[in-house]
Amino acid sequence: MGGTGSEAALSSAMRTAIGAAEGVRGTTSPNPPVGCVVLDAAGAVAGIGATRPPGGPHAEVVALREAGERARGGTAVVTLEPCSHTGRTPPCTDALLAAGVARVVHAVSDPMPVAAGGADILRAAGVEVHSGLLAEEAESGPLRAWLHFARTGRPHVTWKYAATLDGRSAAADGTSKWISSPEARAEVHELRRRMDAVVAGTGTVLADDPQLTARTPEGGLHEHQPLRVVVGNRPVPAGARVLDDTAETLLLPASDPDTVLAELAGRGAVDVLLEGGPVLAGAFAAAGRIDRVLGYIAPALLGSGRAALGDAGVGSISQAFRLHVEQVTMVGPDVRVSAVPVAQE
Amino acid sequence: MGGTGSEAALSSAMRTAIGAAEGVRGTTSPNPPVGCVVLDAAGAVAGIGATRPPGGPHAEVVALREAGERARGGTAVVTLEPCSHTGRTPPCTDALLAAGVARVVHAVSDPMPVAAGGADILRAAGVEVHSGLLAEEAESGPLRAWLHFARTGRPHVTWKYAATLDGRSAAADGTSKWISSPEARAEVHELRRRMDAVVAGTGTVLADDPQLTARTPEGGLHEHQPLRVVVGNRPVPAGARVLDDTAETLLLPASDPDTVLAELAGRGAVDVLLEGGPVLAGAFAAAGRIDRVLGYIAPALLGSGRAALGDAGVGSISQAFRLHVEQVTMVGPDVRVSAVPVAQE
Ligand SMILES: NC(=O)c1ccc[n+]([C@@H]2O[C@H](COP(=O)([O-])OP(=O)(O)OC[C@H]3O[C@@H](n4cnc5c(N)ncnc54)[C@H](OP(=O)(O)O)[C@@H]3O)[C@@H](O)[C@H]2O)c1
Ligand SMILES: NC(=O)c1ccc[n+]([C@@H]2O[C@H](COP(=O)([O-])OP(=O)(O)OC[C@H]3O[C@@H](n4cnc5c(N)ncnc54)[C@H](OP(=O)(O)O)[C@@H]3O)[C@@H](O)[C@H]2O)c1
Repeated sequence: MGGTGSEAALSSAMRTAIGAAEGVRGTTSPNPPVGCVVLDAAGAVAGIGATRPPGGPHAEVVALREAGERARGGTAVVTLEPCSHTGRTPPCTDALLAAGVARVVHAVSDPMPVAAGGADILRAAGVEVHSGLLAEEAESGPLRAWLHFARTGRPHVTWKYAATLDGRSAAADGTSKWISSPEARAEVHELRRRMDAVVAGTGTVLADDPQLTARTPEGGLHEHQPLRVVVGNRPVPAGARVLDDTAETLLLPASDPDTVLAELAGRGAVDVLLEGGPVLAGAFAAAGRIDRVLGYIAPALLGSGRAALGDAGVGSISQAFRLHVEQVTMVGPDVRVSAVPVAQE
Repeated sequence: MGGTGSEAALSSAMRTAIGAAEGVRGTTSPNPPVGCVVLDAAGAVAGIGATRPPGGPHAEVVALREAGERARGGTAVVTLEPCSHTGRTPPCTDALLAAGVARVVHAVSDPMPVAAGGADILRAAGVEVHSGLLAEEAESGPLRAWLHFARTGRPHVTWKYAATLDGRSAAADGTSKWISSPEARAEVHELRRRMDAVVAGTGTVLADDPQLTARTPEGGLHEHQPLRVVVGNRPVPAGARVLDDTAETLLLPASDPDTVLAELAGRGAVDVLLEGGPVLAGAFAAAGRIDRVLGYIAPALLGSGRAALGDAGVGSISQAFRLHVEQVTMVGPDVRVSAVPVAQE
């Protein structure tokens, strides 16, 4: 790429933009969490922005406001192609042109027909436009759920579970304390705060009485709380913690995963954390509605007790749900495996 | 350390010695697999050796023979403290003194009372002796099983299993093909060739008719084959592949893991691979006789089917066998987790 700023400086700016987008995940749906860095004509960072909650400004506008006059002749580095349509806010292409940026570099092209054309409009107005920089990072990172939603119309489902090396989520007597480490539990709270909704079955709610909120290590509530969703026909007792006033809760007397997802999509949820238990997770697996598996594997053996995943309609090995491991990381003493269905690769 | 050779050169030599020792694992029992590098007075590598099969020369003697006159005034870098006793071969201390080495650097001190004192004898003869260099690598690497045997009198047991992310080793109908990848299977053959014995229960032998040999990727037999051991009272049919003439086989109509291990120790086996199935592995776990767990976790979900580990007498989570993860590695598409009991850390 010509113009100001080396390839390395642009990559660095894009990484910052991706980081800014990660930071607002869970607060932008149904809009995508986007990040933007504005570089001035000399290539220095003049503004950083990320999508504000629905109704608020998009990432480009936030970054341009910070940059002010320094944006003129500069470069906007954005994780997603700037939008060209008027929704609850005016098109970002207008804002970029008004600010006089000379160049736009985006990671991912917009897959939504209604918004496409941002790059073309900018080019027609004489702006240099490049796409594809760190596209893979943006696609598998902050934009993953939103892109899935844009393509399928369904929220993206991450099934999170904790189990021993031998695949048990509780001992024979039902006890499960310590199956996940404090480090893993802290991470799950970080995960929840980035989600639009957290889903559990009545089985888990009746057995464990979880609050299903996103809390800080000190026990305080995070500012953003995902919608809490309880799926199943059994009534949830009035005193259940999931019904307290710390966050919104949706009781869904449904059993078809697609009914659940349609209901969530209707509420603008794009990124959903399925927290189980095994029966509900089995139903989602059987329906092909698990888009990512996040397993916290505790280094322990039980040899009996409850299995991490319940019946998913698999009778023979050829029907197994085959995944591809994206990432393996240690989280405290546990092994965290992130995997996606092979067909979705 | 003073004298010839920098710290870095000594570490490099010790790494070579550890590698040489790894290369002979499985062929030296009941002797330890040891590696030795002899550096000449100028610090250059003059000889590399590893323990030969029982009755053959020890690592030091092999390396000294290659070094010849260049050993004089040089350094012997050895993974284990040189022995000072006469067994089937003369003491290595004699060989080192006769060769005129000026310095001996070893990783691990000899824990066997009968052999201890090598360092003292060398020092008394005017040789400079240092111990502890890369001790951790040697202890957790080639010397692990032998040190365990020296301390407990029992062979070291590695339980190897293959399972899905949700802990299943076969689907509901018993099919299990593809649960481990070709890469994982190839690695298991590499593992077997380094073992003294491979143990399975009659259940596995009757169900799968495995050969339990160490084969090359092309299907040929490795030179060293571990003793094949079948544990259980049910008769093994005469035509079973485990009874073919490719390797020695021991049929053990026993059920107490300690009886099995005592029998193996009596035959000089130090490093044992427990290949299952779930019932026998459960019995070993219950007896506290699993010293290392090596899980090949396939990125797939089944939701039903056979569990990787059978009953191990654990009723409540507080009785779980807690492990510590040593290493997590991708093996082809699979996640390999190596873990050791917490108490053994
Ligand atoms: N280790 C972990 O990661 C983890 C995570 C969560 C929970 N758990 C454990 O799991 C246990 C609860 O297990 P669980 O499996 O019973 O709970 P669950 O999966 O949360 O709930 C099962 C219930 O979900 C409802 N449901 C909704 N759609 C369904 C469908 N398509 N098919 C079947 N059921 C559907 C049914 O409720 P109705 O009968 O009311 O219709 C069913 O009884 C608890 O002990 C908890 O500790 C473990
Ligand atoms: N995924 C894997 O990594 C893996 C590895 C190996 C096998 N497998 C699968 O496992 C299946 C076989 O399972 P399995 O569990 O029946 O086989 P197993 O564990 O190999 O054999 C069980 C038998 O071991 C004998 N045994 C010896 N000591 C025992 C003790 N202390 N307690 C209980 N039994 C003892 C008993 O034989 P007697 O009744 O004859 O006395 C028992 O029936 C096969 O389908 C195979 O494919 C999977």
